[in-house]
Amino acid sequence: MWAYEKLYPDIETGIEGELLFEKKTPYQDLKIYQTSILGRVLFLDGTIQTTEKDEFIYHEMLTHPLLLAHPNPEKVLIIGAGDGGVLREVLKHDIKKAVLVEIDEDVITFSKKYLPSICAGAFEDKRVETIIDDGAKFAAESKEKFDVIIVDSPDPVGVAKVLFSIKFYKDIYNCLTEDGMMIRQTGSTMFQPRELPENYTIVKNIFPIVIPQIAAIPTYVGGFFSFIIGSKKVNFKTIAYNIIEEKYNKLNLNTKYYNPDIHFAGVILPNYIKKGLY
Amino acid sequence: MWAYEKLYPDIETGIEGELLFEKKTPYQDLKIYQTSILGRVLFLDGTIQTTEKDEFIYHEMLTHPLLLAHPNPEKVLIIGAGDGGVLREVLKHDIKKAVLVEIDEDVITFSKKYLPSICAGAFEDKRVETIIDDGAKFAAESKEKFDVIIVDSPDPVGVAKVLFSIKFYKDIYNCLTEDGMMIRQTGSTMFQPRELPENYTIVKNIFPIVIPQIAAIPTYVGGFFSFIIGSKKVNFKTIAYNIIEEKYNKLNLNTKYYNPDIHFAGVILPNYIKKGLY
Repeated sequence: MWAYEKLYPDIETGIEGELLFEKKTPYQDLKIYQTSILGRVLFLDGTIQTTEKDEFIYHEMLTHPLLLAHPNPEKVLIIGAGDGGVLREVLKHDIKKAVLVEIDEDVITFSKKYLPSICAGAFEDKRVETIIDDGAKFAAESKEKFDVIIVDSPDPVGVAKVLFSIKFYKDIYNCLTEDGMMIRQTGSTMFQPRELPENYTIVKNIFPIVIPQIAAIPTYVGGFFSFIIGSKKVNFKTIAYNIIEEKYNKLNLNTKYYNPDIHFAGVILPNYIKKGLY
Repeated sequence: MWAYEKLYPDIETGIEGELLFEKKTPYQDLKIYQTSILGRVLFLDGTIQTTEKDEFIYHEMLTHPLLLAHPNPEKVLIIGAGDGGVLREVLKHDIKKAVLVEIDEDVITFSKKYLPSICAGAFEDKRVETIIDDGAKFAAESKEKFDVIIVDSPDPVGVAKVLFSIKFYKDIYNCLTEDGMMIRQTGSTMFQPRELPENYTIVKNIFPIVIPQIAAIPTYVGGFFSFIIGSKKVNFKTIAYNIIEEKYNKLNLNTKYYNPDIHFAGVILPNYIKKGLY
């Protein structure tokens, strides 16, 4: 059978595969397909979230650039990311604690069961605290401060819409230590062209340093996929190459996409993306 | 109606649109659709060749990196590229002559008619010579030498298969001046993972300098799309930034993807691509 992603009204991706599991959770429609070209694929509300084949790109680019640039990341907050891929990469760093706040427990339960290579046992690590709650509520109420905050939300529709509000970004800012940094995805630069500029403007009004980052991810169609980074002190665009390289080698990260050169190339933007921002 | 690209057996892209024109030419099945998300789209044998929306990425990355790196490009040979997009970008440079060899005259005729913004009058430029012939045969028989050769072929199936042979690359080498350079596309790094390594090996055995280049092009699904560059003398990975920047500014290229930073970022490879090569 074929599974179709209908994220956009006039372009769709079809993947040949077999439906392994389906559940209407309290928050969304969760489906897992077994495909030959992308391995197992997680759909939420008809949109591809992650695939075994290329999840490494998104998960590496959402974690290592910040965790290597930060002088001493000890505490990390992850909002969303119930599949565990972000957590897996975060735990490769010398951190003391990672708090993961996921609204939909079923995403964790069934990702662990059907996509075990993505979390790779990360939820069982002693440094991890898993909280089933609304990430926006957690950020608004938390008294705890974090060095790095990673927001792994779906697109700004439905349950994730609140995670793109100005209030949410302000709450994230307040949850960060004085040299803290945050990152989140901001969609396809070609098919969701307003998402990066809109979030860029919000982050620019709250954080002293704002950095757009891009990566090419097959699963997220539409050319370069984008991320926005807000930082209180550290500008990782201007950090010394050898600092990144030394830490990267010392941690023996064994990445499949990210490397010290990509660290700096990932913030170089084609003109069509720059034009929307500056 | 929906048009489906079935380039791969188990993943496909569907685009909502209207069939504007269709012809079975002597070489291939040519279709042009009017779509809302990608503008007009050219299909050859069911595979998307170019779209009005994102053609600039492919055409800029196939031309400016080489034409700016070459010390004095006067004569350019283009094989394929009947839609005229490569020619349009080449003519922005201070060249004396561009020879375009396209096997299928219908591609030129109907691209000019239905996709006029892509060639943008380029075929009428006095510096252009258009030859309707087999590109492989032309390269084998030509006595003329070129500074830059650009091969804009479809994937290595059907009519274009010969354009990926060792003999063809040797003929291209022999058509180049002593500081000449060539470039061609080598497919999706994720869904056609053998194409770049296979062509890399061939080019490495013929040219003193071989450089893989990447770009994110929405129309060509599968993450980073790749190019292979063979050069007799110039290594544009190590050329001074200010040389590229000065020429770029002087020519007032007005590019939408390429810029001097992208020149250097476009040759930085993620680990999964490097791994297949070195």
